Amino acid sequence: MKLLRYGPPGQEKTGLLEADGQVRDLSAHVPVLAGDAVALPALDALRALDPADLPVVEAPGRTGACLASVPTFYCIGLNYARHAAETGATPPEEPIVFSKAASALAGPDDPLAIPPGSTKTDWEVELGVVIGQDCWQVSEAAALDHVAGYCVVNDVSEREWQIERKGQWIKGKSAPGFGPVGPWLVTADEVADPQALALSLTLNGAATQRSSTADMIFGVAEIVAYMSRFMRLVPGDIIATGTPEGVGMGMSPHRFLRPGDVMELSVEGLGTQRQEVV
Amino acid sequence: MKLLRYGPPGQEKTGLLEADGQVRDLSAHVPVLAGDAVALPALDALRALDPADLPVVEAPGRTGACLASVPTFYCIGLNYARHAAETGATPPEEPIVFSKAASALAGPDDPLAIPPGSTKTDWEVELGVVIGQDCWQVSEAAALDHVAGYCVVNDVSEREWQIERKGQWIKGKSAPGFGPVGPWLVTADEVADPQALALSLTLNGAATQRSSTADMIFGVAEIVAYMSRFMRLVPGDIIATGTPEGVGMGMSPHRFLRPGDVMELSVEGLGTQRQEVV
Repeated sequence: MKLLRYGPPGQEKTGLLEADGQVRDLSAHVPVLAGDAVALPALDALRALDPADLPVVEAPGRTGACLASVPTFYCIGLNYARHAAETGATPPEEPIVFSKAASALAGPDDPLAIPPGSTKTDWEVELGVVIGQDCWQVSEAAALDHVAGYCVVNDVSEREWQIERKGQWIKGKSAPGFGPVGPWLVTADEVADPQALALSLTLNGAATQRSSTADMIFGVAEIVAYMSRFMRLVPGDIIATGTPEGVGMGMSPHRFLRPGDVMELSVEGLGTQRQEVV
Repeated sequence: MKLLRYGPPGQEKTGLLEADGQVRDLSAHVPVLAGDAVALPALDALRALDPADLPVVEAPGRTGACLASVPTFYCIGLNYARHAAETGATPPEEPIVFSKAASALAGPDDPLAIPPGSTKTDWEVELGVVIGQDCWQVSEAAALDHVAGYCVVNDVSEREWQIERKGQWIKGKSAPGFGPVGPWLVTADEVADPQALALSLTLNGAATQRSSTADMIFGVAEIVAYMSRFMRLVPGDIIATGTPEGVGMGMSPHRFLRPGDVMELSVEGLGTQRQEVV
């Protein structure tokens, strides 16, 4: 299934995207797509519905974040070797975990406002993993059985705030709009191999990031199992699994976002985001 | 007002603590104490109720976390000069922000299970600040007008996972039970000066942390205003504002938690937590 949220900010309804591109209204069954509504049994119950029984949405309009809220918005740092190299970092020996403010969640096509005081706002296309079942101390072999699905994430980052303010990365990862998620939550049964997905980002039409999740240092199963040794992952948590090379901080000279820039980013099978910078 | 949640884990109801220690059942007015239920207008509506009209709870039993969930569980690092010194760090020039997993939330008296693989689980009594109104780019002068109230937090920390795993601190701050919060959410009108509160923690009856929020490097208003330059704070967010000296990592030799240990921690006017280590 491809689940989405459509409508104006704060008034989104839950929808089901059909293969022909038609959106069906799921909101009678899923008032709020978040948390336990994406737990595996809840998704199984949706699978049992006949889409033909659901109202067709003629004009869904804006697409919201594919989750209304997140218990915790986790991210993995420096998880592609060539991206670690471009930032001057050595590849990590074990996953680097950090988080974004939950209030950074945004729709996949919402304009991105450069926050006041920012001079180094940057892009990061990533594969997002959505948890579907409590994970505490799970094995790598069992890890993928705890995944509800996948989505595109732009892990927007303010590099001065992230790196030069002598703190932890969350400070540069959390401004309003810094967490576009979606357009769809694609359930795990539709993703044959999360380590074989092309992902890309263009800036004003020019390719800047182009890679594959095959290049991850730590794969999705390894990340989920690893994290579950340190924290309980719960249904609706997002894990943004790191970005490949080609971010603005990696260019010479640096190239950070400016009003008028347009980012388009995709992960194979998970749809496309488009953000205009304002 | 002193708001609390009472009952077995996952089945907590909202209560109001009266001056005589009696608990009144608020759950008809506040089904879930979290998020917008602690926004300032919602709290004003509760203040307008006559407690005598609320049912008395004869045996409230266990006390849960004073918030059912948190959008983001923020923490400030190294915010007392003597604590920074005991850990070998230089006092920060601006606040260090990090976060805990939302799933670390726990009741104030719940047993603390040392997680598998941990050898360095440590304690940190802290003043918790609960946000009551959206904060984005607010001034220090206006910051306290955005605070719903205060609570005790034990920012339980696994030092190896926090510091020695080459990542970000969240890894050592997030295990199940690592975020006891409460017993009460004490509304801001009952806290005359958040920078004049004694706070203390005893381990097996012996004083280990004893300080005052007067010793904070960055006060509550400064923290809220500072954070609001980087992320939107929203109703129900918690900010644990840092711990004073006296943690196990600061002792020589180090003293970390062992099964059978009992922590008791208090912040003046905000109640007491008691956790037995298992």
